[in-house]
Amino acid sequence: MFPGATTDREAASYVVVGAPLDATTTFQPGTRFGPDRVRRFAETYDDYDRRTDSRFSALGVNDAGDVRPWDDVPAYLDHLAAELRSVVYDESVPLLVGGEHTVTHAGVEAVDPDALVICDAHLDLRDAYDGNPLNHACVTRRCLDDLGVDRAVIVGARTGSEAEWDRAADADVEVVAPEDAREWVDGLDGDAFAGETVYCSVDIDGLDPAYAPGTGTMEPFGVAPRTVRDLVRAVAPRADGFDAVEVNDRDDGQAAALAAKLLREFAYSHAAATTE
Amino acid sequence: MFPGATTDREAASYVVVGAPLDATTTFQPGTRFGPDRVRRFAETYDDYDRRTDSRFSALGVNDAGDVRPWDDVPAYLDHLAAELRSVVYDESVPLLVGGEHTVTHAGVEAVDPDALVICDAHLDLRDAYDGNPLNHACVTRRCLDDLGVDRAVIVGARTGSEAEWDRAADADVEVVAPEDAREWVDGLDGDAFAGETVYCSVDIDGLDPAYAPGTGTMEPFGVAPRTVRDLVRAVAPRADGFDAVEVNDRDDGQAAALAAKLLREFAYSHAAATTE
Amino acid sequence: MFPGATTDREAASYVVVGAPLDATTTFQPGTRFGPDRVRRFAETYDDYDRRTDSRFSALGVNDAGDVRPWDDVPAYLDHLAAELRSVVYDESVPLLVGGEHTVTHAGVEAVDPDALVICDAHLDLRDAYDGNPLNHACVTRRCLDDLGVDRAVIVGARTGSEAEWDRAADADVEVVAPEDAREWVDGLDGDAFAGETVYCSVDIDGLDPAYAPGTGTMEPFGVAPRTVRDLVRAVAPRADGFDAVEVNDRDDGQAAALAAKLLREFAYSHAAATTE
Amino acid sequence: MFPGATTDREAASYVVVGAPLDATTTFQPGTRFGPDRVRRFAETYDDYDRRTDSRFSALGVNDAGDVRPWDDVPAYLDHLAAELRSVVYDESVPLLVGGEHTVTHAGVEAVDPDALVICDAHLDLRDAYDGNPLNHACVTRRCLDDLGVDRAVIVGARTGSEAEWDRAADADVEVVAPEDAREWVDGLDGDAFAGETVYCSVDIDGLDPAYAPGTGTMEPFGVAPRTVRDLVRAVAPRADGFDAVEVNDRDDGQAAALAAKLLREFAYSHAAATTE
Amino acid sequence: MFPGATTDREAASYVVVGAPLDATTTFQPGTRFGPDRVRRFAETYDDYDRRTDSRFSALGVNDAGDVRPWDDVPAYLDHLAAELRSVVYDESVPLLVGGEHTVTHAGVEAVDPDALVICDAHLDLRDAYDGNPLNHACVTRRCLDDLGVDRAVIVGARTGSEAEWDRAADADVEVVAPEDAREWVDGLDGDAFAGETVYCSVDIDGLDPAYAPGTGTMEPFGVAPRTVRDLVRAVAPRADGFDAVEVNDRDDGQAAALAAKLLREFAYSHAAATTE
Amino acid sequence: MFPGATTDREAASYVVVGAPLDATTTFQPGTRFGPDRVRRFAETYDDYDRRTDSRFSALGVNDAGDVRPWDDVPAYLDHLAAELRSVVYDESVPLLVGGEHTVTHAGVEAVDPDALVICDAHLDLRDAYDGNPLNHACVTRRCLDDLGVDRAVIVGARTGSEAEWDRAADADVEVVAPEDAREWVDGLDGDAFAGETVYCSVDIDGLDPAYAPGTGTMEPFGVAPRTVRDLVRAVAPRADGFDAVEVNDRDDGQAAALAAKLLREFAYSHAAATTE
Repeated sequence: MFPGATTDREAASYVVVGAPLDATTTFQPGTRFGPDRVRRFAETYDDYDRRTDSRFSALGVNDAGDVRPWDDVPAYLDHLAAELRSVVYDESVPLLVGGEHTVTHAGVEAVDPDALVICDAHLDLRDAYDGNPLNHACVTRRCLDDLGVDRAVIVGARTGSEAEWDRAADADVEVVAPEDAREWVDGLDGDAFAGETVYCSVDIDGLDPAYAPGTGTMEPFGVAPRTVRDLVRAVAPRADGFDAVEVNDRDDGQAAALAAKLLREFAYSHAAATTE
Repeated sequence: MFPGATTDREAASYVVVGAPLDATTTFQPGTRFGPDRVRRFAETYDDYDRRTDSRFSALGVNDAGDVRPWDDVPAYLDHLAAELRSVVYDESVPLLVGGEHTVTHAGVEAVDPDALVICDAHLDLRDAYDGNPLNHACVTRRCLDDLGVDRAVIVGARTGSEAEWDRAADADVEVVAPEDAREWVDGLDGDAFAGETVYCSVDIDGLDPAYAPGTGTMEPFGVAPRTVRDLVRAVAPRADGFDAVEVNDRDDGQAAALAAKLLREFAYSHAAATTE
Repeated sequence: MFPGATTDREAASYVVVGAPLDATTTFQPGTRFGPDRVRRFAETYDDYDRRTDSRFSALGVNDAGDVRPWDDVPAYLDHLAAELRSVVYDESVPLLVGGEHTVTHAGVEAVDPDALVICDAHLDLRDAYDGNPLNHACVTRRCLDDLGVDRAVIVGARTGSEAEWDRAADADVEVVAPEDAREWVDGLDGDAFAGETVYCSVDIDGLDPAYAPGTGTMEPFGVAPRTVRDLVRAVAPRADGFDAVEVNDRDDGQAAALAAKLLREFAYSHAAATTE
Repeated sequence: MFPGATTDREAASYVVVGAPLDATTTFQPGTRFGPDRVRRFAETYDDYDRRTDSRFSALGVNDAGDVRPWDDVPAYLDHLAAELRSVVYDESVPLLVGGEHTVTHAGVEAVDPDALVICDAHLDLRDAYDGNPLNHACVTRRCLDDLGVDRAVIVGARTGSEAEWDRAADADVEVVAPEDAREWVDGLDGDAFAGETVYCSVDIDGLDPAYAPGTGTMEPFGVAPRTVRDLVRAVAPRADGFDAVEVNDRDDGQAAALAAKLLREFAYSHAAATTE
Repeated sequence: MFPGATTDREAASYVVVGAPLDATTTFQPGTRFGPDRVRRFAETYDDYDRRTDSRFSALGVNDAGDVRPWDDVPAYLDHLAAELRSVVYDESVPLLVGGEHTVTHAGVEAVDPDALVICDAHLDLRDAYDGNPLNHACVTRRCLDDLGVDRAVIVGARTGSEAEWDRAADADVEVVAPEDAREWVDGLDGDAFAGETVYCSVDIDGLDPAYAPGTGTMEPFGVAPRTVRDLVRAVAPRADGFDAVEVNDRDDGQAAALAAKLLREFAYSHAAATTE
Repeated sequence: MFPGATTDREAASYVVVGAPLDATTTFQPGTRFGPDRVRRFAETYDDYDRRTDSRFSALGVNDAGDVRPWDDVPAYLDHLAAELRSVVYDESVPLLVGGEHTVTHAGVEAVDPDALVICDAHLDLRDAYDGNPLNHACVTRRCLDDLGVDRAVIVGARTGSEAEWDRAADADVEVVAPEDAREWVDGLDGDAFAGETVYCSVDIDGLDPAYAPGTGTMEPFGVAPRTVRDLVRAVAPRADGFDAVEVNDRDDGQAAALAAKLLREFAYSHAAATTE
């Protein structure tokens, strides 16, 4: 159980769902161990959050456990989306823990947001990868083209194929380079995302590998943790869903500790905004 | 390149083919790093083999590199089988390095043997796993039921589902428990496999985890390395194909060192028999 | 949850209890991660056991989770013993997963056996260690001197202080050296432990470090896994409690995989005997 | 021996004392290996320091080895304090290497400073943890409430319980958030700590986990190494004691390398100030 | 093969040469695995580079494999220099991958530059180390004193012996402290290195250990990755040779990923400048 | 300090000398960390030995620390031999801890034995390796051809070049295959080595990699630990010198724990024989 996620499902405002999908990782596998590892490295965190003057265990978080994957990725994503949709129907906010980035497909399908705010090293705007449209490198494209998302902001993106960069030039995509992320986050104000519903996805490889080496494809020159934290804090009040993905077990716990922290920051910030 | 595999493809008697498939591993992934790791830990071995008085680099071994997998496992296996068939057509012996055990499907399809001699902790006789008939846990079943293999001997098998054990009771399957392996191997004589063509597959988890911890699903109480070595030595003279599979990168090199050694034992023994 | 331990507590014949105590380890710490790790490496095991023709999930096993330690070891052991006593009162068999060997104190206190059968590299017969009578190096002594156990058999013991060897020479202690363990186990027959109630404790360091490197104090020249397995199989039918202890996270999973397997062997064997 | 700590005890101006206490760590243990590891990763450092134009081996540093812990933490802390007090009586400066943060209790008891300057992610202001007032999470509280320290500055603190934050609001505690640490350190001038005796303690988890993953409880969003270095440089001239704590062996050496470096920075800076 | 280095040697503009020398490392060995590891962690990078609008596989890069070392370091360096000189004679640019920093001796001998731009934590200006003038700690000195290099800029240098700092005060050495590196790089303009031929060498320990823990001698307080990247981008257009050295296998891939990235940045930037 | 090696040098019967040479390892380096690691993993062993009824700390063992290597291997071996000769002159028995096998050259030079009993996977009978006659692969040859040793028994040898096997056929070499080691050791009686002085060297790779994965060149199918233990016990009473070599830090401590144990077995057995 995610530490402090002690609320019953029926009474929960937030539901943690693990999605240990590890099917299409191109390089280093291990995202199947992500949810367990994120829960484990969250054990040391204080329940109390000074900034919001609230306790995580009092936010109404339930841990629904993992939705176990099988070989048929499209079927799994359907099943996962259904599970998450039931969370949404209960007027709870899903907090999805990957697994590879592909699981965001299910999160977005369930939440059905207008806008997607992503922290990611990669554009993930491929139409297909190795012939597979549901590869993790295609997930943002799927959300825009197939799932009805109006626009995506990709913070920290620093690499992609030529076709992906072309797609990124379209009006429905905004790319914020890692070097510009701090300023972009600082510029977010009350009007940002006004009138939009939002889904927030953190691919842990959006951060610099120094802070999160335990991920499938390290990409140097990434975003600093405080910037991502402040991004999550700024977006959470407008967001109806969150995920942290691409954590594996190939480091000393840095990536998992960070993902757990960002999930908690989302919950604290969302709760503080909605209970004002 | 596998150390000593310096022969040109056209002139080769043996062709090493890496098949880093890592798609359906149930527990710990990493078999995608198997072929590289097996090649790397083979670097320390002497070229000369005292028992057969021959040099590995003089056996006529080519390293054809890896056949890179993609998401569509059935298509990949077809492609891999075609690649291996071209080896067989050239009257060379394929030495396949996995990758998960599923790649044996391609090896057997290419070699088309009468009998299959397998070292494995698991029966791999499932009809399907998670709905997937090409899962690694089904590979022996596929060979028997779909690929025309007449019989399979599974040395070191110590676990399986009830349905697998039922299937194992059929006349075309012989199970040699780890405890009986030494005696069974010692009992192999010149008449064993007489009149049969044979394919030899070593799933590294057939050995005890102490000797090969770097594998997807450790199963205690396994076979000792010398027994597997002697099995390979005994079967190689009658075999037209070999593979070593299920090595991953989650140990200190023991599994890869062993797989590399067994591949070499196969080649030395096969060559010694055919050149007599 | 231990895989397959799906029975409700009230209906359970066996109750898995994790006791991640990691307070007095002399050398390499990490037993606090033992229970989680044992559960995790049990995930790959088939539910079905061929020898007993039974399914683990049908044996009636419940996983009661962990009893979390705190700094006061004596108080913790009291609390743990109370928890295990409630298992015994329900006529279930406790399957304790350590944690350091000290937790056996609680298991024995709850089960109150006549005889103790231990697999251990160390005699654990000290009266105190660093002034602490509840140190892991004293646990067998405590059971004999303080908890009313009539006799202890320590299989695989190969080291101790001079005072411990002196204590081991008393009539209530039998030491079976690793070299003699195979023969001793083979000699167990129906009359062994006749009229006695028994508790079975496996300190994973009783096995050779090759098979279980992930433990606090490796001691070479240990017992082979099959011997310990057969010991567990022989003792289980007469035993009312079982534990597997001293697994930490400082290896590639070998120790945890083995502990999980031995716990399962105990349950299969005990159930087969009691349902005959 | 800490590299370069070649001075005899009697002639020493600084005495390195290892205190490998590893008793109350809440999450990942291993601080018992801290002192050895810090010494080992110091081996690569040049003896000469450009900034102060001095050699470490000429500063008069002795390495007194480790004070070995046992199970009775209060007794151990008394013993350690006595050992450190003998250093102070000899007019040497103790350089304590942990072990868990609890050992600072002994350092402060021996040095008896007016002010405590701490780098730490955690407030460590609990009155007790799991009922234990000598837990590592209580050490700053103990120093203030029991050991007569007048005030504490906690640089990099970013988490604590509600009660700890309340205690931190008292006049004798100053909390410098990680975001403000750079500016705070830059603002230290000659009048800082005027008329006060000071003890400086670096809990390595005060730094961001990217720089020191090998610690018991990683807490993201920490202080940068250069800021802590400059803090140490600024405080050292006014300090009579120093420690670096909470380094364990669960990373690739980053935490130990950093702790060793900061200890050296303290000695260089202290010596430069006192020899002016 | 370095991913994308698919051009034939004859047609190549750039030639990757691995030099896995691991003979004189003072502390943690393993640079012998550097070239393989750098190639492996480059596998995840996109072929396309957005900034220069070019594909790595279209830059004309050949991978000539490794020049295998033997025990006689001077002879090896001669041989390596000859190999690299043949690259230079073919009007290609050598991209050397270490191996310890000593291999830069061969790179500089082959390229024969006027100026050397180095990123390094250490001055490497010793006349000899342990009596060996070809130790890795002497390589910059050798280039200046023996190989005819007119001047060296050492960016990120933060440690050295007193004699090294004295040598660094000579007119032919410029030291840029890590704290000043950002500004120094930003100040490079079109006139920098005008009229000079340049060789660029990146010792991965020039970066902070958080970003590259896998190196022989970690030295805290280092340069940030983006600064080194921008240094490489600025220098590449004027450079005729490049190396990335001192990567070993003692981390989770961070050092290798970074070295691979910097090598690519060099090639992209050099090609963009020369094809303008 | 090796645990229990508390005797002053002048009074010592045995002197532990670390020789962390790591210069010519062909594959995985790290033997430089061998002596430290062997000492560290010896910490858990009981002082008392039941078989010989003696305490290690009462055997008169001194730990002289390490003789630090430098780049000039021949000069280092001379220096090390001088150091060990001073041990011999004092009528003490040197217990050398490697470092690579090359250090045996110094041990044999100092002890000047008639016979050499070696446990090793490799013949180490090359005349030179990469042109270097002092490579670790040549050490047994050097002892026989250059240092006046009359004969060598190599227990566990299973690989070598053709030239090495030819040299091994000479009258002064006896090779005992791993399969025959048990019987050979059991056959040693009081007349074995009668009238000969003996030096005993254990290359940890003589054992099977399952028991000692932390070594430079793993070679499967090795000797079991108990056989090597009994070899050491049998040879120790006739031996005037001992070494344990080729332990590195690339495992979880198994190799170091075993080497430490064998060194202790040598000392206990030698002392028991000489004090009878």
